[in-house]
Amino acid sequence: MPRNVLSPILSLFRPGDADPRKNLRRSIGHIIGARPLNVGLYQLALRHTSASKATAIEGFRESNERLEYLGDAVLGMVIAEYLFKRYPYKDEGFLTEIRSRIVNRETLNGISRKIGLDRLIEFDGSRTRSLPARTSMYGDALEALVGAVYLDKGFPFTRRFILKKLLSHYDIDLVVQNNANFKSRLIEWAQREGKEIRFEIISEKGNSHYREFIAQVIVNEEPFATGSGYSKKKAEQSAAEKALELLQST
Amino acid sequence: MPRNVLSPILSLFRPGDADPRKNLRRSIGHIIGARPLNVGLYQLALRHTSASKATAIEGFRESNERLEYLGDAVLGMVIAEYLFKRYPYKDEGFLTEIRSRIVNRETLNGISRKIGLDRLIEFDGSRTRSLPARTSMYGDALEALVGAVYLDKGFPFTRRFILKKLLSHYDIDLVVQNNANFKSRLIEWAQREGKEIRFEIISEKGNSHYREFIAQVIVNEEPFATGSGYSKKKAEQSAAEKALELLQST
Repeated sequence: MPRNVLSPILSLFRPGDADPRKNLRRSIGHIIGARPLNVGLYQLALRHTSASKATAIEGFRESNERLEYLGDAVLGMVIAEYLFKRYPYKDEGFLTEIRSRIVNRETLNGISRKIGLDRLIEFDGSRTRSLPARTSMYGDALEALVGAVYLDKGFPFTRRFILKKLLSHYDIDLVVQNNANFKSRLIEWAQREGKEIRFEIISEKGNSHYREFIAQVIVNEEPFATGSGYSKKKAEQSAAEKALELLQST
Repeated sequence: MPRNVLSPILSLFRPGDADPRKNLRRSIGHIIGARPLNVGLYQLALRHTSASKATAIEGFRESNERLEYLGDAVLGMVIAEYLFKRYPYKDEGFLTEIRSRIVNRETLNGISRKIGLDRLIEFDGSRTRSLPARTSMYGDALEALVGAVYLDKGFPFTRRFILKKLLSHYDIDLVVQNNANFKSRLIEWAQREGKEIRFEIISEKGNSHYREFIAQVIVNEEPFATGSGYSKKKAEQSAAEKALELLQST
């Protein structure tokens, strides 16, 4: 029997199962709280690099990486504004640190699972649900989803989606409490690893009103990272932040 | 004679000079192409750290740094979307690199001067126009201006302002042409400095379909920076990018 004769009848009993796009539309609708218009965008947002598809353009394979780039920027901006308004008397160092904790890969992975996005991702091995080596996949897909929502539904909708449906999974006060600063996090790392660590101000410029300092982190008597700032404290924070980035990338 | 009797008459001859806020309103109006509503926001956007003011909150001094944080995020997002749409067949690595060249501090300093923002900045020494050590001041103020415009006039206006009034100062095709990749820029640096440099893949994970590589930059036989990526080439680019960041911060 031809498929197109049977499927409308079957779909009465298993609504939507016959049409994966319809299923996706419904799932995305639940997640974003509105009817998606361009389902293709969401399909792309959920396609991990490992399932990337060749295109008519030679050397250009399509996956959610471009949407992730866009969504990362949209998410970053909406969170920036949210924190700016929530903490009118906190400086930009605080706002930057709290934002980076909110859009942290592990946290985004968690939110992605909470809203059920993980079950929709298409990746190499997705039929057997065996995970690839890199599990930042969930958070990446969440950022890509934000990119897709932005292109599909515009800025005001996306802003509300981020604030109501994503940020609601955070306890921001708790995030702030856990805000150990970079320097103390680096010192903890050194203690854990049995390394000797110290900070040195290696340069300062400016006059009595206006100064800039360069701080260096020294690990086991070897220069490890440097950072600059308007005060010694800020320069040390910046150097410690660079050092932590280096450690994370190894 | 009381000031409020004379000033309306004087202002007929030197319009606005009697009221710095009026002057600022006019100058900002020229720059953004619309009447600013909350002039205080723009005043704050133009107040460099060196001219920061104490507030009622102990330890919290007010300058344009918070608005710079917000504007940086808004600018980053609008440029991200612009490049995403302009280059539909370029990967996220390309888009990220071109964006970082557009929002590069030196470039922003230049645009800030071109639109005349530099003459409006309030900083320590601004009466004599003697410059502080740190000249990223212009670009910082431009980002803060974007933050102020966003809070004052909303997203659609700010997006148009960035695209029409700021991006118009760029020759994007030229920016793209100058897109030397990180690895070749790092190699040029090593040649200039007479350093020996090589890249090594120090780790790889995954299966035949899905891999992640860690690359290390080695300068004069010392590990210098590492980076990761889905291909050896991307891992090397990422390591070279980290190395360039380290060099810039010293």
